[in-house]
Amino acid sequence: MSASKEDPLVIFTPSGKRGRFPAGTPVLTAARQLGVDIDSVCGGRGICSKCQVAPAYGEFPKHGVTVREGALSEWNKVEERYKTKRGLKEGRRLGCQATIQGDMVIDVPPESQVHKQVVRKRAEAREIVMDPATRLYYIEVAEPDMHNPKGDLERLMEALWDQWKLTNIIGDLRTLQMLQPALRQGKWKVTVAIYWGRGRSNGRIIQVWPGYYEGSVYGVAFDVGSTTVACHLCDLVTGEVKASSGLMNPQIRFGEDLMSRVSYSMMNPGGHVEMTKAVREAINALIGQVAAEAMIDREEIVEGVLVGNPVMHHLLLGIDPVELGGAPFALATSDSITLWAKEIEIEMHPDARVYILPCIAGHVGADAAAVALSESPHQQDDMMLVVDVGTNAEILLGNRERILACSSPTGPAFEGAQISAGQRAAPGAIERVRIDPVTKEPRFRVIGGGAWSDEEGFAHGPEVTGICGSGIIEAIAEMRIAGIIDEDGAIGSADLIGSPRVVQEGRTWAYVLHDGRAEGGPLVSVTQNDVRAIQLAKAALYAGARLLMDQMGVETVDKVILAGAFGAHISPLHALVLGMIPDCELEKVTSAGNAAGTGARIALLNSAARREVEAVVSRIEKVETAVEPKFQEHFVNAMAVPHKTDAYPRLGAHVTLPAVNFRDTGRDGGDGAEGGRRRRRRG
Amino acid sequence: MSASKEDPLVIFTPSGKRGRFPAGTPVLTAARQLGVDIDSVCGGRGICSKCQVAPAYGEFPKHGVTVREGALSEWNKVEERYKTKRGLKEGRRLGCQATIQGDMVIDVPPESQVHKQVVRKRAEAREIVMDPATRLYYIEVAEPDMHNPKGDLERLMEALWDQWKLTNIIGDLRTLQMLQPALRQGKWKVTVAIYWGRGRSNGRIIQVWPGYYEGSVYGVAFDVGSTTVACHLCDLVTGEVKASSGLMNPQIRFGEDLMSRVSYSMMNPGGHVEMTKAVREAINALIGQVAAEAMIDREEIVEGVLVGNPVMHHLLLGIDPVELGGAPFALATSDSITLWAKEIEIEMHPDARVYILPCIAGHVGADAAAVALSESPHQQDDMMLVVDVGTNAEILLGNRERILACSSPTGPAFEGAQISAGQRAAPGAIERVRIDPVTKEPRFRVIGGGAWSDEEGFAHGPEVTGICGSGIIEAIAEMRIAGIIDEDGAIGSADLIGSPRVVQEGRTWAYVLHDGRAEGGPLVSVTQNDVRAIQLAKAALYAGARLLMDQMGVETVDKVILAGAFGAHISPLHALVLGMIPDCELEKVTSAGNAAGTGARIALLNSAARREVEAVVSRIEKVETAVEPKFQEHFVNAMAVPHKTDAYPRLGAHVTLPAVNFRDTGRDGGDGAEGGRRRRRRG
Repeated sequence: MSASKEDPLVIFTPSGKRGRFPAGTPVLTAARQLGVDIDSVCGGRGICSKCQVAPAYGEFPKHGVTVREGALSEWNKVEERYKTKRGLKEGRRLGCQATIQGDMVIDVPPESQVHKQVVRKRAEAREIVMDPATRLYYIEVAEPDMHNPKGDLERLMEALWDQWKLTNIIGDLRTLQMLQPALRQGKWKVTVAIYWGRGRSNGRIIQVWPGYYEGSVYGVAFDVGSTTVACHLCDLVTGEVKASSGLMNPQIRFGEDLMSRVSYSMMNPGGHVEMTKAVREAINALIGQVAAEAMIDREEIVEGVLVGNPVMHHLLLGIDPVELGGAPFALATSDSITLWAKEIEIEMHPDARVYILPCIAGHVGADAAAVALSESPHQQDDMMLVVDVGTNAEILLGNRERILACSSPTGPAFEGAQISAGQRAAPGAIERVRIDPVTKEPRFRVIGGGAWSDEEGFAHGPEVTGICGSGIIEAIAEMRIAGIIDEDGAIGSADLIGSPRVVQEGRTWAYVLHDGRAEGGPLVSVTQNDVRAIQLAKAALYAGARLLMDQMGVETVDKVILAGAFGAHISPLHALVLGMIPDCELEKVTSAGNAAGTGARIALLNSAARREVEAVVSRIEKVETAVEPKFQEHFVNAMAVPHKTDAYPRLGAHVTLPAVNFRDTGRDGGDGAEGGRRRRRRG
Repeated sequence: MSASKEDPLVIFTPSGKRGRFPAGTPVLTAARQLGVDIDSVCGGRGICSKCQVAPAYGEFPKHGVTVREGALSEWNKVEERYKTKRGLKEGRRLGCQATIQGDMVIDVPPESQVHKQVVRKRAEAREIVMDPATRLYYIEVAEPDMHNPKGDLERLMEALWDQWKLTNIIGDLRTLQMLQPALRQGKWKVTVAIYWGRGRSNGRIIQVWPGYYEGSVYGVAFDVGSTTVACHLCDLVTGEVKASSGLMNPQIRFGEDLMSRVSYSMMNPGGHVEMTKAVREAINALIGQVAAEAMIDREEIVEGVLVGNPVMHHLLLGIDPVELGGAPFALATSDSITLWAKEIEIEMHPDARVYILPCIAGHVGADAAAVALSESPHQQDDMMLVVDVGTNAEILLGNRERILACSSPTGPAFEGAQISAGQRAAPGAIERVRIDPVTKEPRFRVIGGGAWSDEEGFAHGPEVTGICGSGIIEAIAEMRIAGIIDEDGAIGSADLIGSPRVVQEGRTWAYVLHDGRAEGGPLVSVTQNDVRAIQLAKAALYAGARLLMDQMGVETVDKVILAGAFGAHISPLHALVLGMIPDCELEKVTSAGNAAGTGARIALLNSAARREVEAVVSRIEKVETAVEPKFQEHFVNAMAVPHKTDAYPRLGAHVTLPAVNFRDTGRDGGDGAEGGRRRRRRG
């Protein structure tokens, strides 16, 4: 088909691609020749309706064309049948049926694009473009012929070549076993799902359906955390999240944190096998939940993507994590892995493939790689700091030029552990705290209740049960703002503070947030040891970030992203006040929620993103906090609240921190056993 | 290392490759640079001793060199240690240790060659050259380094590249799981077994052993016949057959022949699943037997090759063979298949791969492809006819220019079925028969007994139980030579023949070979119906061969190969007398034994042979006997014994067939019910 200057001009939107085509050319054909992103499963046979387009009529000065009635061929029988049977939106045409008759402007709506964008809740986040590894193809296979004794599979392969120009496709035993009946049931017409591996070569048939398959295929993205396992079920055609769910990681019974699980494996021969079994069971339970919620069969889930920290990664794979428990923290594998779901006993489609993101280092795992994919420092001009706060904090610092990573041993204080009234983030936990700088009286909010403690509705909310990580952060930051603790983190005595909220506890003081003991409830106070535990944790986090900044040779960062479930609840202002993170304009500190889970979802929906994250991870420079002398120095310096007085104006909020040091009064409330061990005066 | 004209000249035998190398070059290095076929697993570290060479000293006028003492470096410590520890043949050196000091002639003995030849029993058969898909490599892996957080697997891959120039190697989950402990146990030295797939790309690690692995790896070659399943266990390094075994195919309980098994599947929903289970169980039992015999663990068997007719092929794969039961005889797949052994529930090494040869057509299976590989018509200048005689005869005709194939429905008569005293080839069955043309008295030999029936030792042999396929062929051919049956296959009456051996049986006559009834044994006679059954079978076989000759446009063939267990026992002379096969010089008719099993073994030991058989099969032109009118014509014409009188001189043996036709005497002994139906006078 060669076009001349007299042929109709066709302009596709939103791509703007344009060309001239002889009258009678189907719109789909024109679109394909121009490389317009338009979907089709049936290959232009008017069956799948994926190639729907919306012709526009009238004057288009911008494009320099006038589209007249009759510029597209008349509504045809195939379109009529399709509309009657399945419905077609007003103004829509089937791209494979409508032919070009005159100058045209044709819109390809998002749902007709293969590489459609998936909407993300955060406006500032990168777009997710659909480019799934599994795709559907409808084909018509030649019937068997005695004189040409090719097998069913070989004729299928010929059809894939003739009708889709697909080559080097692998059909395995399951394909073979289902192909024979499917071809006959579908009268030599079938739909096949092909999984495209690395680099779009060597496609692999994973399913064959008789005739045109009306359904979709699904994938699951998992973030396997030490504490919780989170799962999103996604439609691999539309990109839509069909269901999400989460479960406590049942490995918790073998140890609360990572190191205690590694220890369990060291102390109990075969212990890692039990932990592997536990996490795989949780994954299977979650798949059952999300499949039930979306009302699909788990066998319709054809792909999975998994991320997790190195210990979770190894346990998931059935590898003893013992080497990760000590230097040199040797990973069994650092690269990405693609394997059959059944190899790791994950129950979904029998040929489902699972992709596991690469690990950055022995302490910075596939979850951090997923955060890097989601937050994309490699696509930033700004110097971006990403902290994924959990038992360990994974820290990334960089831009499109260079990216550094480290892991910092924050310990479990941020998750409410080692805190006197601490608890996990669950209904009843105090999560927001404000303290009046004048009266020193607190007000707070609990998870599961909308009202503040001084508001009317508070009594209707859940009973107060304790304080979670974000609550303790805010409490301590507010105590600092209210002058209840000093720069070194010492709680002033009742006398000094002049508030009945400050009570003696052993040799030190505590601040009572809530006393429910009269009603059989808990006493929720912030003790000196609580402050020390948070100081240690935040100092570790800050020191890690600072170490990366040293290595990068920068004094400030342009953006801070707080990732992780904890990061989602933390108040950026209070994090800055506390000195958890380096100074940055308040509005440049944002929370990314479960960025690791989002990264897993991106890798699930876009196979090019898998290559992208592999390339990024290979470029990330790992900094080992454990052996860097500077880390210890930063750590010690970061114990204070705040550590740098010139930081306040940059907070961009009306916060003043009183320049108080109770040590100067000779009545140091600090030096609790834990804090004192590592504390040193600043130089 | 650049060589000059003054450098020592090194000549390797048997290859004759020669070159000059600077003094001090290790022999292995020189050999590799010249492309001499020399083995090494340890990469020249003096561990594996695979690179043993035999230096020769003295005058070599043929090569134009004189080799003096001192032309090789002195015996070194590594060689001394190796000799003490493991022994080294007199005159042998380790190629990686001995260095060149002067002009040298160095022999690479067969056991040091990678591509060594495996000896076959038949002198005329093609050589088997070792080129196994699975190879062993010893490597030294870098220790983990905190500052370079690459995983164990990635450092292993680097070592494979650095030390062996291997790239694109895949390590799967099992590799990962065993790698971590193996590396530490072997102190960062391991031996890996790599399975090389199609085209030597994408090697796949299937096993990792700590340190240098002293053992070997094994493979099994299976010929899955309708009646028997045969298995050879081979050493994949030496090529040696370590054990062989065979079992009755337990599918026999679902039907004696192929069509009755297809019918079973048609009549019983899920019936094919039972048959699949049965044959897989037999395969697993055989693996157990051969592994026990060779005293290895079944997990040391890392590869399998399977061949079988299309119905066996499909049942083995778990595919309903029902489509093979009728036109158009559609195969589920015709190409070769590589799959994991565990996919078809074959119990060997957990990552063992199984290769299944391609099928030629719906009636001519992977067993015929294996015969083609073993007998290699594609490497012949002569026009070669290969017949694999079983319930169906698979027939190949061709040379390096062109190959044709067909399947001919000979029925089970050749296997002793449908014969009055017929039985399978087993001890007690008459397998050899001679009849004195004058006295008409028979002498015979039974399976399991060395002596003829008129010899002294005969009584010590097994009791006569019946007659097997090769016995009935010889009996009828001898009856024809002795004038007991005529050209049409009619047995003459007792009067005409003048022998008490000829007795009346209903309306026709029979020839008594053995009457053991007095001792409670059987009566073994050749009845008119027996003759008719063999006539039908041999006519089908002959007609198939003749049809291919028509299509090829040849009147004669240069060579005939009789393949299959039956073909191994048949007497070429008697086959020619009977007119089973087209006329050919007697010495050009040979038996190949279980050529299908041999073909499977070749494909096991030489992965290039897999590509070869795939290429050959894609070239073979399939001729469908069922729809070729000429086949029926040839079949009718081939009923007579013999069909062409001008053939006798070409037999190359002193055989005269009396020109007798009992119909001329008016006393036709023939026209038994079965024979008469299809019989027609020749034109």
